[in-house]
Amino acid sequence: MGRFDQPVLDFWYEFASTYSYVAAMRIEAMASRHSVVVRWRPFLLGPIFSAQGWTTSPFNLYPAKGRYMWRDVERLCRDFELAFRRPREFPQNSLLAARLALIGAAEGWGEAFAKAVFVAEFGEGREISRPEALGPILTALGLDAGALLARARTDEAVKSRLKSATEEAQSLGIFGAPNFVTEDGELFWGNDRMDEAFAWAAGQGQRPARMPR
Amino acid sequence: MGRFDQPVLDFWYEFASTYSYVAAMRIEAMASRHSVVVRWRPFLLGPIFSAQGWTTSPFNLYPAKGRYMWRDVERLCRDFELAFRRPREFPQNSLLAARLALIGAAEGWGEAFAKAVFVAEFGEGREISRPEALGPILTALGLDAGALLARARTDEAVKSRLKSATEEAQSLGIFGAPNFVTEDGELFWGNDRMDEAFAWAAGQGQRPARMPR
Repeated sequence: MGRFDQPVLDFWYEFASTYSYVAAMRIEAMASRHSVVVRWRPFLLGPIFSAQGWTTSPFNLYPAKGRYMWRDVERLCRDFELAFRRPREFPQNSLLAARLALIGAAEGWGEAFAKAVFVAEFGEGREISRPEALGPILTALGLDAGALLARARTDEAVKSRLKSATEEAQSLGIFGAPNFVTEDGELFWGNDRMDEAFAWAAGQGQRPARMPR
Repeated sequence: MGRFDQPVLDFWYEFASTYSYVAAMRIEAMASRHSVVVRWRPFLLGPIFSAQGWTTSPFNLYPAKGRYMWRDVERLCRDFELAFRRPREFPQNSLLAARLALIGAAEGWGEAFAKAVFVAEFGEGREISRPEALGPILTALGLDAGALLARARTDEAVKSRLKSATEEAQSLGIFGAPNFVTEDGELFWGNDRMDEAFAWAAGQGQRPARMPR
């Protein structure tokens, strides 16, 4: 249980993921409505995709799926009143942003940083793979951008924490993003499952017994 | 527009698809709530999967995705109060059932047949690839099972209609199942998009302009 004995829900997100953007922008309101504490858990999909033989996003590998996704995300952003601008490059390299988000998670600015990165990327169509894009976001949060970017590039403990997080995601059965994982290990995949995940975490969800696997 | 000038929504379903089962069991109530006429459009995913190099369902090709899907469908069936029993074989060969559904669509028993097949397959875990499973369903609908099964196996016009339907699905940008396609060509993929599809069809949906493709 989280602070004040509130239930905890892990929000596993990937900066390269369009649906993670939509979920990231909605999750605070949902958390407060359900009195659930959300832990923001950045991870990388790249190694998970590689492990199943993909060299890029399935939205690039399968063009019909990709065309649909962009249209679907555009519709979702309209429904949820979120800015949307398709970036020229997809997926973007999210390594540096994810490392920064991990540093921020330990220092209390992880969520604000993550949301600002998502807005830059999919609300404004900007490139977030480069330090030139991430620096101003850090500065706007009142942080020392230069020092943090240097640390994100060199700090072995941070690198290793991101590696561990990605391995943990994989061991939880994660194969895409975003995901919500409850304290009892129930996995919900996709922005579409946010309602069910919060209901489950708050103890109001329908709970079929575990299936044999 | 449909009868009584109601809007029409095409429901593209595949008998092998678990999420098509969930959608098929929900769609009548949704249609009457929105005053939308639903056209049931059976098609085959096999040729569409083959065209992108898959020899079976992605739920088999990618085990983590498959494990998640079975758990997710079990949860959805609980939420929607639908029977659920995982069949031993997946995906099942849906060719014969799809041809029968096309015959039924022209004769007024297509929807009842489709729902009965889905219930047998995913509500009772039965094999629906074989005539022995489909015959009793036809008989229970008061139809001549022997004659219909023979026709489904031999009638070239029926075979060709199914082929055309599958090609039409592909040309609409369909890459999975189920799907909902509005009269203005808007594609919604997945049981998760049923609400949005009906709202769109009924003219209550949010409509961003078409994106350049």
